Amino acid sequence: MAGETTARRRPTGRRAGDSGTRDAILDAALALFAEHGYDGASLRAIAGAAGVDPALVRHFFGDKETLFATAVADRTTIPLQVLSQLGGDPSSAGRALTTAYLRVWEDPGTRPVVLALVRSATASPRAAEMLRDTLMSRAADQPGMTPERLRHIALAAAHLFGVAVARHVLKARPIADLTVEELVDEVAPTIQRYLTGTHRGPDL
Amino acid sequence: MAGETTARRRPTGRRAGDSGTRDAILDAALALFAEHGYDGASLRAIAGAAGVDPALVRHFFGDKETLFATAVADRTTIPLQVLSQLGGDPSSAGRALTTAYLRVWEDPGTRPVVLALVRSATASPRAAEMLRDTLMSRAADQPGMTPERLRHIALAAAHLFGVAVARHVLKARPIADLTVEELVDEVAPTIQRYLTGTHRGPDL
Repeated sequence: MAGETTARRRPTGRRAGDSGTRDAILDAALALFAEHGYDGASLRAIAGAAGVDPALVRHFFGDKETLFATAVADRTTIPLQVLSQLGGDPSSAGRALTTAYLRVWEDPGTRPVVLALVRSATASPRAAEMLRDTLMSRAADQPGMTPERLRHIALAAAHLFGVAVARHVLKARPIADLTVEELVDEVAPTIQRYLTGTHRGPDL
Repeated sequence: MAGETTARRRPTGRRAGDSGTRDAILDAALALFAEHGYDGASLRAIAGAAGVDPALVRHFFGDKETLFATAVADRTTIPLQVLSQLGGDPSSAGRALTTAYLRVWEDPGTRPVVLALVRSATASPRAAEMLRDTLMSRAADQPGMTPERLRHIALAAAHLFGVAVARHVLKARPIADLTVEELVDEVAPTIQRYLTGTHRGPDL
């Protein structure tokens, strides 16, 4: 990545291959987006937290939207971690997906990231658009995907998202008071029905 | 409400019974919270939009948090509109609740209000706390409520919330492209299972 081409693109002499700097900016971006939301985290503040000049952030990432999208795409394997559960045993995919998704929210290392995504997407239509496009293209890329299966996965994901927000953002008591295991027991059967397309009946 | 007592409390002579002014402030508050989120809407901007002095907003509502809580409590019958569906025929309560909830998000008159709630609650822990407490106390006040039923209703509400955010905030395509009727058909059976406590099986 570094070398001649890079040197020509960056006449100041700063190395494009300075992945430590790039990483520091992305780390700072994720932290500040989580803390202040998409609109509240400025490029200047992110640069300050990363210990670099704001011009360098613009140099690497262009605008704030691109920085956000890059941070999500580069720094979170979360969508793939969760989506990979769809490739296992179909009879237990509902429980596997529910467990994997809720664990992302329980984990102190990944919770700030998903909180940043939620706050960004609710605060900015452009952020919502980038998040949607990233998630949808990753879901659509899964093996054996059909429009019907994508609809079922989207309904399951919407359900899991709502439960996570109730638990971790609103901290609504019945849901926030359950252990993760109890919550999985409550929710996984429904996720399983969505994944198998049996959610509309005939058990009612 | 107006008269002697009021006049004593407000020595400037401005009438406490000036419900038009109070209404204008609450209208402006809801509009600006929807547009800028909880943190982005300042008391000063709300006062400006309502055509009053910021001191008058503080006089009526104290601080911004109280203004928000008052706006939600006074201006949205949404929680009660939705929760009232729980009092009807139990065999069709899932469909009734799903339809009532999703209609609130479809209606151009109420959508800004629920968007304001979502944006506020995700941007500010204090706003989330007030929203949670308002919603939980209204749900807990429903006739015949038990801890188990409250848990089931919370799971149903979390699901509906996730679907609404996927459709109206993220605008995720499979869910955003369905008609409301199609979406109700997809989701209502699950909501019905939560309300009847049959969501954990035995149909898997």
